[in-house]
Amino acid sequence: MDISTVNSLCYEDFVDTFGNVVEKAPLIAAAVWSYRPFANLSDLEAHISDFIDNLPESGKEGVLRCHPDLAGRDLQRGTLTRESQEEQSQAGMASLSPEETTRMHHLNAEYKRRFGFPFVICAKMSDKAGILRQLNERSGNDLTKERECAINEVKKICCLRLRNLVLSDTRNKL
Amino acid sequence: MDISTVNSLCYEDFVDTFGNVVEKAPLIAAAVWSYRPFANLSDLEAHISDFIDNLPESGKEGVLRCHPDLAGRDLQRGTLTRESQEEQSQAGMASLSPEETTRMHHLNAEYKRRFGFPFVICAKMSDKAGILRQLNERSGNDLTKERECAINEVKKICCLRLRNLVLSDTRNKL
Repeated sequence: MDISTVNSLCYEDFVDTFGNVVEKAPLIAAAVWSYRPFANLSDLEAHISDFIDNLPESGKEGVLRCHPDLAGRDLQRGTLTRESQEEQSQAGMASLSPEETTRMHHLNAEYKRRFGFPFVICAKMSDKAGILRQLNERSGNDLTKERECAINEVKKICCLRLRNLVLSDTRNKL
Repeated sequence: MDISTVNSLCYEDFVDTFGNVVEKAPLIAAAVWSYRPFANLSDLEAHISDFIDNLPESGKEGVLRCHPDLAGRDLQRGTLTRESQEEQSQAGMASLSPEETTRMHHLNAEYKRRFGFPFVICAKMSDKAGILRQLNERSGNDLTKERECAINEVKKICCLRLRNLVLSDTRNKL
């Protein structure tokens, strides 16, 4: 789909297409439809990013809380969104050893107890070792820094999901 | 569930329970979890209402765009959320005559062309005749007034959905 096709979508089709570029937050796609036409993919991405930045801290935490645990309940039950399933599988989260799974659950639980939201990372830009290292490191952050860090990961995930849906072209430079 | 049980929920269970009190907006339930403990049901309701009020206009339109048409595509396909299915059925939207369905589609399409979001009304507080009358009347509003009117309906829907989930008691007055 190119950007002119994106700009021609009615809100229903736009939300059907982009409703999960931020995990389980069709509200965000539905909101940024108000800003069409988009000059290019980066412009669409910037509107999503701005929308998130303008949420109150509770709203940013809400965005994070709509994300599943890595190697968690939803992966085990098969109830991940299609996008999360693909991303977690690609980062090796679907093929952890029993010991690694136990360690992951323990670290996730610790992180959630500390911050009140799940550990979010752009899994596609990492791998098993990198994820575990980041989870360990970021658990030492204070709440303000970690919320900002996690929201940046949401934006990276969003960027990759968007690029999977919208073609860039030479006229509409990224 | 009483308010002390609500206050004891982890965010996952809170979002599982309240994720659709605003249609398809688990982000909102996930955000207001930050404000627990809630004094009573009204306090929880007020936090949801404040969160919506503090969204930019695009965000309010986003909330509206996550709602299905009345007697529309999702009702016909059986893809309404459980709550919307019950509310639309109770208001007679599932048992329109072919002529009424055609009229409803026509009016919905006109409304959406005018405002860029669907006609939202608290169906449980209305009936077929009332819904058609409101749809006709509100179509004459300007965008600012109609957005406000529609958001008020979202809050009424939310209030009824919440009361279906949380018991009030004499200590925690509504």
